[in-house]
Parts: sequence; C-alpha cells; structure tokens
Amino acid sequence: MIKVSVFYASGEGKNFDIGYYCEKHMPMVQRLCGAALKGMAVERGLSGMTAGSAAPFLAMGHLYFDSAEAFQSAFEPHLNEIMGDVPKYTNIQPTIQISEVKI
Amino acid sequence: MIKVSVFYASGEGKNFDIGYYCEKHMPMVQRLCGAALKGMAVERGLSGMTAGSAAPFLAMGHLYFDSAEAFQSAFEPHLNEIMGDVPKYTNIQPTIQISEVKI
Repeated sequence: MIKVSVFYASGEGKNFDIGYYCEKHMPMVQRLCGAALKGMAVERGLSGMTAGSAAPFLAMGHLYFDSAEAFQSAFEPHLNEIMGDVPKYTNIQPTIQISEVKI
Repeated sequence: MIKVSVFYASGEGKNFDIGYYCEKHMPMVQRLCGAALKGMAVERGLSGMTAGSAAPFLAMGHLYFDSAEAFQSAFEPHLNEIMGDVPKYTNIQPTIQISEVKI
C-alpha cells in the first residue's frame, strides 16, 4: 500500500479553506480516481509539539493506493481538473510525497 | 481525534533505520502510552509527486489520541525515555505537529 500525502505549509499570508477541502475537493478527487483509491484522510494543523506553538502545516491530505503505478494511472488523467481546483481553497503551493505504508 | 505526526526530513547525510523504528521504537511508544494511544502509523518516503524525484521526508510516524490533553498526559511522563531512543535510529531532528483529524 502506498500513501500520497499533500502538505500545505503554514506561513505569513497563507490561507486554507478546510470546509471546501473536505466537502468539495476531496470528494471530487475520490470520484475521479474511482476504485483505485483505497482510502483517504484529512487533517487540520493545531500546533507543534507543545500547545500554542505554530503548526508547520495548515492542513494535510492523504490518498491511499495499492501502488505508485495505480496512483499514477488513476490520478494523471485528471491532473488538470484536480490542480485547477486548488486555488478555490488555498494560496499555498503544496508539497507532495509518495510513501510506503509500513504500519 | 487528534494525530501527532513526527516528520523526519530527508537531506545530505541524513539516515533513518526504518526496521528499528517499526520493530523497537514504535512498540516502545505504544507500551509507554498505554490505552490512551488509539492507533499509530508509519510510512517510509519513496518519492515526490513523480517517480524518481526526491521524497521530502525519509519517514513519518503518527500517533492517534482522543485529544491533545490525552496525548500530553500519556506522553510527557515518558518524554526522556522516548527521546533518548531517537539517536538509535536516526540523526534527523524531527518536526512534530499535532493535527485535528477531519476525515
């Protein structure tokens, strides 16, 4: 299983509409990727290690697929539509990582 | 539900023993935190968005608790023991974030 994580880093002037992301963007991604998408997760940053410290990321989104190839096959045909939706919820340029799920 | 994510950033000269982390470190954290720990996850970085590009993080570890307060209560009494184990598997100074689980 692989996990595609999308990180939205916090910073001066950065914004993120978590409502739009959860209610519109992620369901759209789910619909476009179809059965190849095995699961998804979304988190909103609260803090660093200690209460009151700044969270490095305003939000993170995660998509699970059987393999990196399954992700590329399901995602790339819809890349323009998915990326075109990003400015509707954030002005952050996301960082993306593909990881192997170990536990 | 909250998620405590620990990010181990990649970089020149950085190393991470994923075997030790999965087989020794995370089970130790689980034992020390007890029933307050509701779940955990570990990922190993494979790449960025495209195959062959560098992964921003060599590894990530995640711990789930009912609340930030439940995390602090369960984790802080064992902070020294847990942090003292870190040099056994990596030379990376981790970044930590507490997030609210939305999906």
